[in-house]
Amino acid sequence: MLKVVILGTGNVAKHLFDAFSASTAVETVQVLGRNPDAVKYFEEEALVFGMHEVIEDPDVYIIAVNDDSISTVSESLIGRKGLIAHTSGSVSLEVLAQHGNHGIFYPLQTFSKERPIDFKSVPLCIEANTEKNKSVLRALAASVSDRVYDIDSRQRRSLHLAAVFANNFTNHLYHLAHELCEEHQVPFDILKPLITETAKKIELESPYEMQTGPARRGDKATMDKQLGLLNSPWQKELYSLLSKSIKRTYQKHL
Amino acid sequence: MLKVVILGTGNVAKHLFDAFSASTAVETVQVLGRNPDAVKYFEEEALVFGMHEVIEDPDVYIIAVNDDSISTVSESLIGRKGLIAHTSGSVSLEVLAQHGNHGIFYPLQTFSKERPIDFKSVPLCIEANTEKNKSVLRALAASVSDRVYDIDSRQRRSLHLAAVFANNFTNHLYHLAHELCEEHQVPFDILKPLITETAKKIELESPYEMQTGPARRGDKATMDKQLGLLNSPWQKELYSLLSKSIKRTYQKHL
Repeated sequence: MLKVVILGTGNVAKHLFDAFSASTAVETVQVLGRNPDAVKYFEEEALVFGMHEVIEDPDVYIIAVNDDSISTVSESLIGRKGLIAHTSGSVSLEVLAQHGNHGIFYPLQTFSKERPIDFKSVPLCIEANTEKNKSVLRALAASVSDRVYDIDSRQRRSLHLAAVFANNFTNHLYHLAHELCEEHQVPFDILKPLITETAKKIELESPYEMQTGPARRGDKATMDKQLGLLNSPWQKELYSLLSKSIKRTYQKHL
Repeated sequence: MLKVVILGTGNVAKHLFDAFSASTAVETVQVLGRNPDAVKYFEEEALVFGMHEVIEDPDVYIIAVNDDSISTVSESLIGRKGLIAHTSGSVSLEVLAQHGNHGIFYPLQTFSKERPIDFKSVPLCIEANTEKNKSVLRALAASVSDRVYDIDSRQRRSLHLAAVFANNFTNHLYHLAHELCEEHQVPFDILKPLITETAKKIELESPYEMQTGPARRGDKATMDKQLGLLNSPWQKELYSLLSKSIKRTYQKHL
């Protein structure tokens, strides 16, 4: 049984805690946070204390806090023997280098407090300073997820960047579509099945193959008409640049 | 029982045909297409002929062909008594004005030959030249879908534009993420659960509320680092413009 201490009480901490709780191979012996309201969630199953009072020496410490706070929390663990890992996509492994045993335990998923998630399908990206530590993190990961990947810091940075396109920017396009619906008095709900299906289709075929629409067809008449329907200059700018990018993608491959 | 003739054999025609076939309120008496291979799919249940040989007078003709071909197919139906509707998001109602009974039957969804779809959840946008024709289309729509909307041509144009953002542009961002993964030797599969979850989250909360990432946080250090990781000028340009658009969205609402 792997003993784990979680440092942090946000969305990632909560979903990790739930996943560990559901596994027979892991025991979360403690969750630490400074926010008294946030720690309540964990109280029934784990001991909770202020951020600097780790009472037990676990196998693994999981630092699941904001990127900016990782080094501060890491400082508070100096002298601990357990393996210390953070969960960030963009912070380097070296930030934990002062610890003899350190690594990365990065779940590549978007978590929200309200939505339950099937943790078995969450990709976990693992890295560590030694092979031995890597196998500890791999075992921990495999106990809660079916998708465990060995990913070094360089690859993790690239994944995190690709995730900005696939999640942050995509969500912003949903927002722009929402805004257009409100502007033109049509319910955004009509678009929701399209949004879900667009995402599901990538399971079947590459997005390159799945591309449709006026820019893909080189249908200038429709593009000009649609540009005319857009009211704000930055909507027009985004429409033009994204259409241009689609056009060049397919010209390039001709 | 509503009798329907479908003109066209592409993805939309196929999914409509399947939905009508599953309904006890509709009978597809004929499917017309010029491509002998494409019509094979329909042969078991419907009579199939060349494009200009409609043999029966149905209640509704559904023109499910490319936007550019709608007026040609419409010409071939001059003199017919039935209600003639097309399925396009961007072609006006007026293109069918030479027919006494005409309308729109626009399914707002992305269809692929390979992926089955739950047609009950496909939004159907209805418009017609008279109230009587509108109720015929509404009845036809309600027999296959739980989401039927009265949408006039102006609203339909706006929806189609919003769909370009929510589907075409979004899919292109998936492609860019895919390209980044290949460039940096990481499997695109790792991103798929993130993509699906990002889409599902809009059921719970508006995309405005769901926005995360460096641009949302105004985290200039991370944005600069990520710009540095991008190799091509147009990746950089898209990254900058989308980040700027996110920033201005949240500044505007402060």
